[in-house]
Amino acid sequence: MIVRNFNDAKQTDRRVSADGWESVRLLLADDGMGFSFHITTIQAGASLTFEYKHHFESVYCISGTGSIEDLATGEVHKIEPGTMYALDKHDRHILSGGTELVLACCFNPPVTGQEVHRADGSYAPADEAA
Amino acid sequence: MIVRNFNDAKQTDRRVSADGWESVRLLLADDGMGFSFHITTIQAGASLTFEYKHHFESVYCISGTGSIEDLATGEVHKIEPGTMYALDKHDRHILSGGTELVLACCFNPPVTGQEVHRADGSYAPADEAA
Repeated sequence: MIVRNFNDAKQTDRRVSADGWESVRLLLADDGMGFSFHITTIQAGASLTFEYKHHFESVYCISGTGSIEDLATGEVHKIEPGTMYALDKHDRHILSGGTELVLACCFNPPVTGQEVHRADGSYAPADEAA
Repeated sequence: MIVRNFNDAKQTDRRVSADGWESVRLLLADDGMGFSFHITTIQAGASLTFEYKHHFESVYCISGTGSIEDLATGEVHKIEPGTMYALDKHDRHILSGGTELVLACCFNPPVTGQEVHRADGSYAPADEAA
């Protein structure tokens, strides 16, 4: 059994950040769960374009409000506590924090911890990132 | 892109419950993400023995306080907002709600939605449950 705490993990290299967001990776590929689990904070007012070409991601909003725009359709979905979205088609999207958003995120395949967002908004596939 | 809301899903058959707990399955096997994602509520004072022999599960505490006892070691871990535990060894455990616990849970392989907890505290493997 693995037990970790967000506030402790935030003080370690499990926390990664870039403009507009930070993410604390509570489970990574080497934990052997077959998925990774991250608590991600999007800054109020941030607007971020992502496209996880090599991963499926689900996101659950714990707190805050914002929106996600599906760039394939132009549709904008409100995000509020209790909203879940799942990028089952590796959907290219814009994630916007109205207020600060705190999100619980699952990735399959699991993130290794070495990825950075590439210029195209994706993470590298696991075999390139490891 | 799949978008669902906890409060809406709670009014549908995505909500399952038994003594001491209820769970709203926001993602199931047929969503094709490779994991399932559930918001589970443990009642205050409930004490539940589980052993997911056929699944890996991670749990993140959104709100409430309680504890998890690892039945292999007897160790008891406090659960509070920000605690994450992962049953990477299909660990048999007792989950106790001190106050009501709201938990974000990921299962691999994904739950199909047809499982019930069996007498041994497990879910059936996916090929039996489907």
